[in-house]
Amino acid sequence: MTYCIGIALDKGLVFCSDSRTNAGIDQVSTYSKMHVFGIEGERQFVLLSAGNLATTQAVVHQLRHDIRTAGERSLMTVQNLAEAADYIGEVSLKRQARYLEGGQSTFDPKVTFIFGGQIAGEAPGIYLIYPEGNYITTSRDHPFLQIGESKYGKPILDRVITPGTSIEEAAKCAIVSMDSTVRSNLSVGPPIELRVYETDTYMTGRYLKFEEDAPYLRQLARSWNQKVIEAFAALPDIQWAG
Amino acid sequence: MTYCIGIALDKGLVFCSDSRTNAGIDQVSTYSKMHVFGIEGERQFVLLSAGNLATTQAVVHQLRHDIRTAGERSLMTVQNLAEAADYIGEVSLKRQARYLEGGQSTFDPKVTFIFGGQIAGEAPGIYLIYPEGNYITTSRDHPFLQIGESKYGKPILDRVITPGTSIEEAAKCAIVSMDSTVRSNLSVGPPIELRVYETDTYMTGRYLKFEEDAPYLRQLARSWNQKVIEAFAALPDIQWAG
Repeated sequence: MTYCIGIALDKGLVFCSDSRTNAGIDQVSTYSKMHVFGIEGERQFVLLSAGNLATTQAVVHQLRHDIRTAGERSLMTVQNLAEAADYIGEVSLKRQARYLEGGQSTFDPKVTFIFGGQIAGEAPGIYLIYPEGNYITTSRDHPFLQIGESKYGKPILDRVITPGTSIEEAAKCAIVSMDSTVRSNLSVGPPIELRVYETDTYMTGRYLKFEEDAPYLRQLARSWNQKVIEAFAALPDIQWAG
Repeated sequence: MTYCIGIALDKGLVFCSDSRTNAGIDQVSTYSKMHVFGIEGERQFVLLSAGNLATTQAVVHQLRHDIRTAGERSLMTVQNLAEAADYIGEVSLKRQARYLEGGQSTFDPKVTFIFGGQIAGEAPGIYLIYPEGNYITTSRDHPFLQIGESKYGKPILDRVITPGTSIEEAAKCAIVSMDSTVRSNLSVGPPIELRVYETDTYMTGRYLKFEEDAPYLRQLARSWNQKVIEAFAALPDIQWAG
């Protein structure tokens, strides 16, 4: 399983991903699910993935290949983010179709992506690209997107995140959301990667990778658990009739 | 969708359920998902259901019929909770099989139950009965069971509930867990029913039904939201390198 978050704020974008992959319970490994593409000063992109690891690697390989060979269509030639999402969806769909040619009915090559960034002259944005190649973006009312094991960590994002939230608060909220998910689903796990893109900088931006024993991760998990329990204890008691 | 919780504590059992049912988005209604059976002073049971409403009603009807006709096997004749769970699983499976005889491939008659209570001379307990008729119970390490839309509301239960938690705290925690779920999934909704069974009382116990505009429900939701946001704001900031 996987859990990735993309948050679109007025001041920039926040991306967060776990790194646990498993192909069966005895094949658990660690792979980064965060991929970065760009030209400093002109365009910057971040891609997060959930789903089949082989398809993910093939898609990322193809995106890099198209950039390197300076093909007609690549992340360096697209005019806007929607065009980029369309292109990634197409590459993903083609790969999945190829892997399904074998006709194994139980094999699932699907991948879902979160893709975001900024191209000079355009507004920054974040897209969720479905395995079918179609995509959605954020809105003022719904400024974040999640892929993978998204439910455990959604309530805190719902409570905290608005477009006006600061990058600092949103990054912290992504880590708290990740902590709730890691706690409830063993197949989501560290290292946790966190990346921030600040609007109109066209630079890769701040990045942190938290290993399992990272002091901040442990401190945050402990502190959050304690504060939630305190908050809970302070709630009004149920008034039973009679 | 549905969300139901059963919590097994040292001091008793807590049951909580929502009441929203839908057969398509234009057929949303309200049905209690909490059913009570028992003889005061001898045995008490609570049944919560998630899944096909017709199967649920048929199973509950059959359970009541078997009691009324004083058949060989009913909730009034079973010797222990596991036997009761076995019996309910069997009734459920037979009903589902009958409804599937028509052979409509898209129709899903499945129901999952939470069943708990106490029979004189036995310890109280809670079981989760799968559509397949098999069942699991709680343990000291995992003192609660959930059915339906269970993920949004699981983190708070994980943080708060232990077998030693008081009935008051566990009941409050069930309501908070329900609040997170109602907030995140429109198809889970009030009235919220809450029932408590205290160990060795063999009485139906305290019961509350919260309508959508119940002052306590609103007060708890507002208070919890505010306290969670305060708790979040007090967390340590991320230390970005250099």
